[in-house]
Parts: sequence; structure tokens; C-alpha cells
Amino acid sequence: MDPFYGPGRNQLFVPGPVNIPEPVLQAMNRNNEDYRAPPVPALTKKLLADVPKIFKSTTGTPFLFPTTGTGAWESALTNTLSPRDRIISFEMGQFSLLWIDQMKRLNFDVDVVHCEWGTGVDLEILRTKLEADKEHKVKAICCVHNETATGVTNNLAAIRTVIDDCMHPALFLVDGVSSVCAIDFRMDEWGVDVALTGSQKALSLPTGLGIVCASPKALEATKTAKSLRVFFDWNDYLKFYKLGTYWPYTPSIQLLYGLRTALDLIFLEGLDNVIARHSRLGRATRLAVEAWGLKNCTQREEWYSDTVTAVVIPPYIDSTEIVKRAWKRYNLSLGLGLNKVAGKVFRIGHLGNLNETFY
Amino acid sequence: MDPFYGPGRNQLFVPGPVNIPEPVLQAMNRNNEDYRAPPVPALTKKLLADVPKIFKSTTGTPFLFPTTGTGAWESALTNTLSPRDRIISFEMGQFSLLWIDQMKRLNFDVDVVHCEWGTGVDLEILRTKLEADKEHKVKAICCVHNETATGVTNNLAAIRTVIDDCMHPALFLVDGVSSVCAIDFRMDEWGVDVALTGSQKALSLPTGLGIVCASPKALEATKTAKSLRVFFDWNDYLKFYKLGTYWPYTPSIQLLYGLRTALDLIFLEGLDNVIARHSRLGRATRLAVEAWGLKNCTQREEWYSDTVTAVVIPPYIDSTEIVKRAWKRYNLSLGLGLNKVAGKVFRIGHLGNLNETFY
Amino acid sequence: MDPFYGPGRNQLFVPGPVNIPEPVLQAMNRNNEDYRAPPVPALTKKLLADVPKIFKSTTGTPFLFPTTGTGAWESALTNTLSPRDRIISFEMGQFSLLWIDQMKRLNFDVDVVHCEWGTGVDLEILRTKLEADKEHKVKAICCVHNETATGVTNNLAAIRTVIDDCMHPALFLVDGVSSVCAIDFRMDEWGVDVALTGSQKALSLPTGLGIVCASPKALEATKTAKSLRVFFDWNDYLKFYKLGTYWPYTPSIQLLYGLRTALDLIFLEGLDNVIARHSRLGRATRLAVEAWGLKNCTQREEWYSDTVTAVVIPPYIDSTEIVKRAWKRYNLSLGLGLNKVAGKVFRIGHLGNLNETFY
Amino acid sequence: MDPFYGPGRNQLFVPGPVNIPEPVLQAMNRNNEDYRAPPVPALTKKLLADVPKIFKSTTGTPFLFPTTGTGAWESALTNTLSPRDRIISFEMGQFSLLWIDQMKRLNFDVDVVHCEWGTGVDLEILRTKLEADKEHKVKAICCVHNETATGVTNNLAAIRTVIDDCMHPALFLVDGVSSVCAIDFRMDEWGVDVALTGSQKALSLPTGLGIVCASPKALEATKTAKSLRVFFDWNDYLKFYKLGTYWPYTPSIQLLYGLRTALDLIFLEGLDNVIARHSRLGRATRLAVEAWGLKNCTQREEWYSDTVTAVVIPPYIDSTEIVKRAWKRYNLSLGLGLNKVAGKVFRIGHLGNLNETFY
Repeated sequence: MDPFYGPGRNQLFVPGPVNIPEPVLQAMNRNNEDYRAPPVPALTKKLLADVPKIFKSTTGTPFLFPTTGTGAWESALTNTLSPRDRIISFEMGQFSLLWIDQMKRLNFDVDVVHCEWGTGVDLEILRTKLEADKEHKVKAICCVHNETATGVTNNLAAIRTVIDDCMHPALFLVDGVSSVCAIDFRMDEWGVDVALTGSQKALSLPTGLGIVCASPKALEATKTAKSLRVFFDWNDYLKFYKLGTYWPYTPSIQLLYGLRTALDLIFLEGLDNVIARHSRLGRATRLAVEAWGLKNCTQREEWYSDTVTAVVIPPYIDSTEIVKRAWKRYNLSLGLGLNKVAGKVFRIGHLGNLNETFY
Repeated sequence: MDPFYGPGRNQLFVPGPVNIPEPVLQAMNRNNEDYRAPPVPALTKKLLADVPKIFKSTTGTPFLFPTTGTGAWESALTNTLSPRDRIISFEMGQFSLLWIDQMKRLNFDVDVVHCEWGTGVDLEILRTKLEADKEHKVKAICCVHNETATGVTNNLAAIRTVIDDCMHPALFLVDGVSSVCAIDFRMDEWGVDVALTGSQKALSLPTGLGIVCASPKALEATKTAKSLRVFFDWNDYLKFYKLGTYWPYTPSIQLLYGLRTALDLIFLEGLDNVIARHSRLGRATRLAVEAWGLKNCTQREEWYSDTVTAVVIPPYIDSTEIVKRAWKRYNLSLGLGLNKVAGKVFRIGHLGNLNETFY
Repeated sequence: MDPFYGPGRNQLFVPGPVNIPEPVLQAMNRNNEDYRAPPVPALTKKLLADVPKIFKSTTGTPFLFPTTGTGAWESALTNTLSPRDRIISFEMGQFSLLWIDQMKRLNFDVDVVHCEWGTGVDLEILRTKLEADKEHKVKAICCVHNETATGVTNNLAAIRTVIDDCMHPALFLVDGVSSVCAIDFRMDEWGVDVALTGSQKALSLPTGLGIVCASPKALEATKTAKSLRVFFDWNDYLKFYKLGTYWPYTPSIQLLYGLRTALDLIFLEGLDNVIARHSRLGRATRLAVEAWGLKNCTQREEWYSDTVTAVVIPPYIDSTEIVKRAWKRYNLSLGLGLNKVAGKVFRIGHLGNLNETFY
Repeated sequence: MDPFYGPGRNQLFVPGPVNIPEPVLQAMNRNNEDYRAPPVPALTKKLLADVPKIFKSTTGTPFLFPTTGTGAWESALTNTLSPRDRIISFEMGQFSLLWIDQMKRLNFDVDVVHCEWGTGVDLEILRTKLEADKEHKVKAICCVHNETATGVTNNLAAIRTVIDDCMHPALFLVDGVSSVCAIDFRMDEWGVDVALTGSQKALSLPTGLGIVCASPKALEATKTAKSLRVFFDWNDYLKFYKLGTYWPYTPSIQLLYGLRTALDLIFLEGLDNVIARHSRLGRATRLAVEAWGLKNCTQREEWYSDTVTAVVIPPYIDSTEIVKRAWKRYNLSLGLGLNKVAGKVFRIGHLGNLNETFY
């Protein structure tokens, strides 16, 4: 028996991986299958038709990479950009920071906008930078929709407005890892060129699918993008899409069936109802934090996240101890404070297949 | 209900993904967990201590990438080599061909040795090439241990002997995707620098883990390897190994517990007993093929594979039809012939957690 | 790890419990539920509407007892008969013998017709007995449809004809444990008054449901049946059926969902197709036995069972040793010879969710 | 998809069936097995050695009936008593009432002591009755340890003292359905002759095992007990115990493995720690009820139950509506008020594998 075993279920309230609903566990409780026999292509075809819906896109092309969010980031960048291309990106927490780190290591020229952790994208800085970029050297604007480290949700519509105001042709690449299927995400309306998420977040699956959706403009960009890529190459997928076999290499059979069920659950409830539920539970969490007399790490209401709340604790307490004690004493999993806010905040994840009492 | 559903179980005899044993399905039937809470690092630590054993290595450093064999290939190459580095590799079937294709696209300078499909590495050609390479421009020799498309097992010990005879310092990178845990694989003894496999093969897990093991020499090579890499970078893992948190990004909790059970099953039976079982079942399969009056695609006994048998069928029959009919009429999954042998062979996978009657 | 664990799946070919299909395992992989909340009554209502179909009855009333076949026997007897009531029954193997033993212990007056093991009901003896019973002292005729110990299937239609010819009012109680959902069973057409089966047989579920179906005449008989009964009392069920809550005590939530899926699979394939499949696999088994040069325990073709074949082995071999060796050496489970045929036969079960290759 | 499906898990707080821990679900996620092959007897042997421990008995003989608590009641009565035997029993809620109803229908002569619902056994009445029974016509005293309908726990030690004071030889039969493995139960110390429980209560399994433990005195009583019984007969089990095959009819393989894991979890935590945990959570629940300004149905602290709390609500509210709304609006399952307290109380189950946060 597991040495960590304790009575009762673990209360999993980290902002990912999140609780898996029973129907998804059931769907995944299966043997492997030959992915070249008819069922897997038929299943995949339907998944590919449905996945863009979670991004509210009718024109996007989806890719289901056997990878994590980090891999999905890499796929978004290498398929659309060439080494030394200039990117504007915003650092406002651990995850935006890690994506920026990846961009640098992949040899892009990143113009990092440093934001105080707990704040979101400064639209005026973006406007200034884009206006200054007369030669359109900036090839992409990369933004984390919901910064999981601080509980900040950025206003993507407003960013799109700034880009449009500046008539700037840069691609708009968005990390929707902790927002898609939980916080409203309108890929087409907001002109997002690459949107991505991970299976273990609001989709409430195990880790293992990096889900990427590419706009027609992004697909066009692949034709000139010189970044080396093989495992993460969209073109290999597109080639197999045309063949009707769909997979350039072996997918996880279990995750495909799990994704089918996860999407069915979301569509059954209605995506907008799912989003409204997250809004309700997010607000409830913030009210609880307020009632405890604690502060939200997110500085302004406009950035409040409906999927994660970073709770600032008094300076004489180490938040790491709170997380440890919650786990050890109550079998309750909370998120640590990361990097600049380590020890200062703990995080409550309130995303995925939850309700008022199981939460 | 699934439109493809038929009575009885599907008989899965493709050479991967293979049948999952019940204890592994049980271990994977679980909710997500916080991978930063104590159980996951404790579990990972033990996995990392045990994984090198399946490669028969005491000095190798293992990496458990959330990816497929294709990703493991990419990780092996980009962590040890720099763009334009010269590689000698052998094309003898669809999988060796795909790896070579990856090498080229990752901008390596590949010296491809074309072997007839159904044959293995020509040691004399290798010797000639290495002897000719006085300046040691060849940085790596890449070999697929067991070519899954043709059922050819290469003699890695003999390749190492050639390399040693030539006193050549090239790295020796080996794809053990369809051999490790089924066909004897002696990483340390044979001086393999990077060995890799995938979870859905002889380990009998779902797809989703690209398992890589690096020799000290390979780890040393990363220091100068200039290929761009982030998701597949060993250094990120090594950094987290030191921290004792182990994961640079979110792993699949389910696959980790599944791998634990898969390894337990292998160690319980004894790795050499597992290998002997594959040898027995491989021989039995070949005897059956002979009894049917059909020919093995593999041209010489020395290359016979104990994990997959490619059966050559008479020219007036299309093997694709056999595979289709087996699936449709008998719920029996066989492997297609691929590329050069498409239509000419069908393949029987006999690897993983099998026995004489369930097979 | 289980000390009995061996590689590969156990090949389960006993005549029950039988292999469980994956969709059923998935459906049963769930938490408990409050059986008084709306889903369980709704589920039960639909199950009760569907269960009579497997008996080919439109007028029968079904009961799903949390018990085994032995409990279902007890329920059939005690709900329709009073102590000292006379029963005619046929002993032709271990299971008919055990039912008769139960009848005696429940204080019924059993007129046992002893048949040679390997033969079925002697219709002429039945006719003679019924004709002689001018006073209608015989209250019930009890017959095992398919004697699992010998692989004998009785002709229920012919028995009904005899009863009708004699214009005898006795109830006709039938054990369909190893026939229902595999061998044609026409409750209404054959005037069966109580039919029963167990979940672990052709329904391919775990053990735990004793499924009973009562004709209107059987229900009428309960009004005067004086046998003591509480747990197995139909009236308690009927009371809760009327209330719409359906359960006098707690059912197994998991088995109800499992039964739902098991029935869905049967209806999807078509009950008559399921029966035809069993006929095909039964014939195939008998041909194999013949090819091995062995004899079927069943003496005449008219009694051949499509769900179980008892194979007579040469007298110098102990069939128990064959069964032991099959299990130990091949992880293959065969049925032992029981009682009078112990050591003389082994049994192959070929019932449930099987096909030509998984069999 | 289930029409009742809602996001998040159902919060199951009825007093049974209760939440199943993940390790138990995993252990039960398995195919059927031949129960005559070596693993099942080996498993059973160990279970039978361990089951008496949950009753704190070293001399008791356990029986694992494939049935529910109602069947376990029947087994306890029919194996130890003869028709018309006199029983003293206490009616103090729906479950004691149902057991008494069963006793009457099984033709025993029940002397029912009616207690106000919300109170426990009146020891003085018992003393008076036993003292008056000079001829020892009373053959059994039957008591529900924890009345699940009202949340009353009776003092079994005190009852035993009264019996001993009167030097009365009657058997002491106890329903421990909602107490065993949660509330201290000392079979040997308290001279309980038959103790019983059900798998779906504090053991946290699915419904399907009626677990009975018989003292040597109870076993002795079977020799003269004339009640008819077959399915529930202990002697059939004892016969198979001696043979080492253990089962007179087919058990549920899944429940046996589940029980193994359930016991392992209890022994790992320590039975007394499990009991202390229930005490802590019981007290916490009562404090919550008090804080809500509501009354406990249980009239005196000495009877407070640590597994279920029946909460009395103001007379102008129908408790059935509360339970309905909790289910519909919050996916929260609470227990209804039953019979005399229908509409007046709702019940919170706090038994099984729970902790402070998952509760």
C-alpha cells in the first residue's frame, strides 16, 4: 500500500492537474488498440471536428500532440516563426516567464514586457511598441491568457484591439492552458492565431495532450517558418489528415477516448454554462478569501481569474508551510507560490469538472 | 455504443501498441494528483532508479518524456549533437527510414546506409566507413535495434565491436522501441550511449512515455551539443532531479503509476525470463508461419525478431486485404505492410505481457 | 503482487463466471450512489422493462435479487410453493442434483427422476408420471435447461408439450442459468412459469445478480404459497415496484449499471444473433473435440449444449490433472468434472461475450 | 450520457452505500476468475482469517454471503433458531423495525420492546423481561447496534451485563450494519453470538456482501436450529471450508478482491484509529448541526452515533424537500427521514473512508 495513503479522498485544488470526472475515468479504462484499424481514425475525425469549438473557432485547425503545455508552446512557436524572429511577450508570473525562457532558448528575439506579478498586460506599452514597429519586425505577440501563478486573466479582446488599431500584422499566439473550457475564449472573434491548452486543466483529463489550434493565417505562416521541428511539426499532421489516418505517430488510445467523453460532458452542459459555472465558483472563492481576511494576489478586479486564486498571506507566515500542512493534515492539495511569490501566496485551483459542494 | 463494437475482445497482435495487463489498468485507474506533493517525487525517484535496469545499465541516466518514440528520437539527437554533425545510419525498414528523415530535418548530415528491407546492418560497410573517417567527422552512429516493419533484429554487440575495432569515438544511439523488455538489450556492455523505448511496446502500457537512457558519455556530449531544444532538453530534467522535484513540467500521474506496476511485473517474472518468453513465443510464431507455408520477410535467421514477424504472402494476394478481413471478420488486429513492403507482408506482433494461450 | 500472477491474461473457459467485456468493466468502474435519489429508480425501471426480453417474455415480471443462482432457485421455489408440495424434477448432473437437494431441504416432496449423466429429460417418464397424477398433487415440474456439469441442453418445448398433453396444471420452473442469453429460451411460448439466470453466465457480468422472471400464473401462485421467505420474497419487490422506488433493500449500484451495458451489448448485436454465435462456437468446439479424438460426455446430438462441452478423456488420465496443468502451465482455466464425472471429464465453457479468436 | 449527469462529483453523505476509496475501485476493476483455481481459495482463506478482526473476535467463524444486510439478518436467525422460538427485540427506528418484521415473517415469536424513536434500548425493561423468563423461553435477544434511521447507538456492553446479571442463556444477535469498522464493536468481550454487517457501509465497498460472524455458541445452536435454510445455511459453508474450496456457490470475484483491499486499508490505518476518526467526524457533525441551530434526533448524548446524524428540522419545513433540493441543486446526497420521522429529519452519513475535508 502507498506509504502516503490516508483515509478519504485527496482534495485536489491545485490549478492543474485537476480532478477527473468518473465518466472520463471509465472511458479511459481500456486496453490499447491498433490505431490504424477503423475505430481510431473515425474517433479522431470527430474529435478534430469538435476541438475547435472549445476555442470558439470555426476556422481553426486543431492538433492533438502527445505532449504537455510546454510542448504545445514549442509547437506554436516553431511552426510559425523562424530563428531570430522578434516576439513581444509579457512576463507577469511563472508560466509567462517560462514561455519567454523557451522563446529565448529557441533562438527568438524576445522583447519582454515585465509586469508586476499580480497585474496583467499593460495595453499602453503594447500600443507604444507596436506603433514604434513601423517595419513590422515584430512577428508575433505572445500572451498567456490566464497566468496560473498569480491568478491574472488578461483581456485578449483588448489586446486584439490594440493590434488592430496599430494595423500590425504580427501573429497573436495565446497560451490558454488554464483558461480554455473555463474562461471565455473566442479565438476567431479575437483574432488569435495560435491557441493552445493542455488536457489536465479545465478539460479534466490526465496530462498528455497538448492541444493546439491554428488560424488560417498561422497555417500560412508555417510555409515560411524556418524553425527546425519534427515531433511538433504541423505539416506531418496535415499530411496524415489528408490521408485519413490522422496520426504521424502513435497516439494514446486512452486519452482519445477520454477526450471524447470530456468534450461530450462539456457540450452536454453547454460551453457557456461551463464558463458561467467557473465564474460563479471563482467569485465564491474570492468571497471566501475576503471573509478569511486575506488578500488576492491579483491587483485589480478586471484581472480576477475564474480558475485560480492566489491568496496572499501575512508576511510572518510561510505559505509553503500552509500548503504542506494542508496536504499532510487534511489530505488537501493547494498550489504553492512560485518564484517571486514563493512563500508569499498559496493558490486555490477552481477549474474543471467541479460544483458548489465538490470543489 | 461504439459503432465498431463486436462480441469478444479484440485480439491485438500489432507490434504496438500492445495488450495492457490487468494490474497496469488497475494502477492507472485513478484521479490526478498534485505532482508537487510528496507522493509523486517519491514515486519518480524509485522509477528513475529502476528504469536503467530494463536497459541493463548501471551507469545510465534515465528520462521519462511525456511523448512518443518519435519524441524520444528527437531528444536523443538534439541533446547530443549540433546542427550539421555527421551521422551514420541504416535504412532497412519504415522506422529506421523515419528516424533518418527526422535526422535530416533536424539539420544533421546523415550518411544513410541503404539495406535491403528484410536484412540488417551490414557490418562491413560500417567498418569501411568508420575506418575511412580518420578525422572523426562522424559524431554518431544511429541504429534501430529491432526494425518493426520487417522483423529484423540487429546485432548491437557486433556493431560495438566494429566501432571499437576502429577506435572510433562516435556516439552510439540506439532505438530500442520494439526490443527493450523483450529482446536482450545490454546498454552498458554494448557501449550504447543513448537507448530509448516507448511505453506502448514491450512495457505494455498506453502510449505516452518516451523513455530515454543516456550514458555518461552522452551526458558529457550535451555540454557542447548546440541543437536547439527545450521540451526535450535533458538539462531541464537534470536540474529538477537535483532539486528532488524531478519534473520540469507536468507528468502523467497515471502513466507513472502504470510504469511502476509494469516494472514490478517485469522484475517479478525476471527480465531474463521475460526475454526467454519472447524468444519462445517468437520461435513458435515462426514455426506457425512455416507450417502455413509462408515466408518470413526477414532473410536470415540471425536477424529473426522475437517481437514481430513480417509474413510474406503470395504475390496474387494484397496483404492489406488480409489485415482488413482479420479485423472485420475476426476482431483480430494484425500489422499492415508499410512503404516498400506494403501489400506484400502482414505483421504479427508478439511482444509484451503475453503467454502461450493469450497471444 | 499476486503470488499467482503470470504473464498474459488468464484464458477463462470455465462455464462461468465468464469473461467480462470491456464496456461492462467500464460501466461498473464507479462510486456508490444513493439508491433513493432519482437516477437509480430510473435506471431500474428501464432494466425491469428490458430484462424479460432476454427470456423472450412479454408477460413475465422480473426480479433482480442481489444473490447467486442458488438464491434464485430458492426464490423460485419459496414464492410459488408450500411446504410438502410435490415437485417432479430431473437429476442429470451436479447442478440439477444441487437444486433437488435444495428442494428437499426446503421441505418439498420431490419426485426425482434419475437420468444417466450425459442424457437429458426422459419425456416418456414425465408423461407417465403426469398421466398418473390424476389428483394433480404435483405442483411443480422443475427442470435445468442446460445442465452445466455434462453439457446437456433439455428440450423445454417438448416438456411443455407433454405437460399440455396431460392437461396438467403444475407450474413449470426452469433454471436457465447457463442458457439464457446464449441458447434460445422462449419463456412465453414454452409456458415457463419461473425462469431464472445468474449475472456471471452468458450476461458476462460479475456474480451477484440472481435474475428471476415470473409468469402471471407464478405471481398468482405466490398468493397461496406458504413457504417462509423474506429476503427472497417477490411481494416485497412488487410493493416497492408500485412505489416507484423499486428496492426493498440496497442493490449493487455497480451491477445495475453493468447490467444496463450488458443488455445494451446484447440488444445491439441482437439476441438471436447472440444465440446464433453461441451455436456456431458450440459446433466449432465439438468439431475440435472430435478432431482431438475425444468423446463428448453428452450422449445424443439433440442434447448438445452450445454453452458448455464436457469432454470425456481416456480412463488412464485423471481429468483433474489436465485442468490443473492447463491452469499452471498455460494460465488456461477449464472446468473440472464434478461428482459422478469427476476425473472423467473436463469442461470447456463457450458462453458469453466471445468471438472466434477470443474464445 | 446519463440524463442526471451534472458537473463535479456527487457528494455522497447518505449513511450507506458510502464512498468507495480509489484503491478499492482499482482492486475491483478486473475480469472474472475461475473460483475453483488456486487464487480464489487462497484469497478467501486469508479473508476468513482477517474478517473476525473487524468484529474484535478471535473465536468467531465468519461467513461472506453474496447478499445484503437483509440477507445477513435472515442468515443469523435461521441458522440459530427454530420456528416459534421466542426473541426479545427492540424497535427504535426503521431498521430495527424491519428486522423485527422479518423475525415475525420467519415465524418466530417476537417480544417487541417499543422504544421512542430517538432513544435506545431501555435496559431496565430488558432486565425485567429476562428476570421474568424463569423457563428460558427466550432463545435470542436481537439488537441493532446503531439504528441508522435515528442515529442511535446502543450500549452492547450494558446489554450483555444485564443478560449476565440474569444468568440468561439466550443468544445475543447483533446487527452491526452501520457500526462495524466505524464504532467500537467487541464481539468476544460483549458476548455477541452473531454479529453481522454489510459491505456497503463502513467497509466502503459496493453492496453485495452480507458479512456474518458466529460465536462458538451460535455454531453449536445450528445443530438444533430447525428453521429451513439453504442459501443462507452456515453448514454448507463449513463443509466447503473443510474441503479448502470455501464456496458452496459462486462468489463475486471482484468483491473478494475489493474486501481484501478494504481490510488492508483499515488495518493500515489501524482499526482503533479508524474508530477514533469516526468519533472525531461524528462530533464535528454534531457541532455543525448545533451551530446551524438545529436539533439532533437522538435524545441523549449516550446514544449519539458516530456514523449517522439525524437532524430534526423546524416543523414548517418538509425534510424530504431539503433532501431533494440538496440533490438537485448541489449534487449532494443526504438521507431521507424514514417512516415515523419521514419529513421531520434528514440524515447525514459520516461513515467509511472519509477525512476532515472529504466528508
